[in-house]
Amino acid sequence: MSQPVDDQSSLIGRRRALARRERNASWLERRDQVMNAAAEAFQAKGFQAVSMSDIAARLGSDRASVYYYFASKQEIFLALVEQAVRANVEQIEAVAATGEPATVRLRRVIESLAESYERHYPYLHLYIQEDMRQLSESSDEKHLRELGDRYDDAIMRIALDGVESGEFRPGVDPHMLRFAVLGALNWTHRWYRPGGRLSGAEIGRAFSDLFLNGAAAQSSY
Amino acid sequence: MSQPVDDQSSLIGRRRALARRERNASWLERRDQVMNAAAEAFQAKGFQAVSMSDIAARLGSDRASVYYYFASKQEIFLALVEQAVRANVEQIEAVAATGEPATVRLRRVIESLAESYERHYPYLHLYIQEDMRQLSESSDEKHLRELGDRYDDAIMRIALDGVESGEFRPGVDPHMLRFAVLGALNWTHRWYRPGGRLSGAEIGRAFSDLFLNGAAAQSSY
Repeated sequence: MSQPVDDQSSLIGRRRALARRERNASWLERRDQVMNAAAEAFQAKGFQAVSMSDIAARLGSDRASVYYYFASKQEIFLALVEQAVRANVEQIEAVAATGEPATVRLRRVIESLAESYERHYPYLHLYIQEDMRQLSESSDEKHLRELGDRYDDAIMRIALDGVESGEFRPGVDPHMLRFAVLGALNWTHRWYRPGGRLSGAEIGRAFSDLFLNGAAAQSSY
Repeated sequence: MSQPVDDQSSLIGRRRALARRERNASWLERRDQVMNAAAEAFQAKGFQAVSMSDIAARLGSDRASVYYYFASKQEIFLALVEQAVRANVEQIEAVAATGEPATVRLRRVIESLAESYERHYPYLHLYIQEDMRQLSESSDEKHLRELGDRYDDAIMRIALDGVESGEFRPGVDPHMLRFAVLGALNWTHRWYRPGGRLSGAEIGRAFSDLFLNGAAAQSSY
């Protein structure tokens, strides 16, 4: 669907490139509106079913004006993912850096991520699922990998602090704690659906309770 | 790579179909040998890099004799996955049905699955990752979904038993316990590599400790 417009007028591509270099306030604001409209469309219809025309329709605009900001819906999708992942990373880095107990920080991180996955459904989940494997050669993917490393580091810092301070049991392997937490959170992409039995906040609380206190009523070795 | 052989001689396809209906002992035994050779090849080189010729070479045989048993490497892959998933399901159903405490059963299930993922690397992980999405229309996929449901049910039974018997904390949500356990185990497909720091058994123990006892040295609410 994206080819015809760009082919009919490579002018759009050139204008898009120029506007990107300038990045003035009204361009950025309008670009945000396009992203918000796309996010709503992805939430309502799923990624595959959404066309650039759908996004334009939500804006009360036409396809050409969407193409002025983004070359394809994949590009909008990646911009949404990057925005959400960046916000998550900044949030959990801020939590990790506070002087609060590791138990409190771990809970806050798990809960804020579970809420974020709900808020950014479905595109964070689609990204986790790597439905978008074809995008892996784009340069945005590299940014996303770097953000992923910071994400891991923030959780690792809390896990290490908790073991070091004695707040966590001495037997806890910080790497395995990190993998288990990320696994539980990221696996939501296979089962979480909006409007289900539990909200993002409730999922975050259930996981936090489990990772901090375990399922067993009494220690069991 | 698979087309030419089948095209040159649709006889192979007819002979394969006939042998499958008969399923005599020597055919089944030889088919197992093909599957084992393919499993070794996938482990050594990864799924993408393996050809039917590689599998034949490991058997000291030729491509045509591999095609006598399987129409494609995808078909061998799915047969390996189904064999491994079926063994896992039967194993964890047997554990779930014992009269042991829920804490013991949960630990045994987590540990046996972590060991199985190591033993069946990489094809169980590839299946979890759904690298094989194109296979979703095959009939084997339906079997696999049914096995997946039994897998979920076995873990759910242990979670429910543990809550009911009071071995698990009253606040534990059995669904969330199941999702967290499956998430941690299945997420290994993103980071586990053979010969890494921890073996499958050690990963299973670390996860069991975490899910039973939690990370916190003292209960933290």
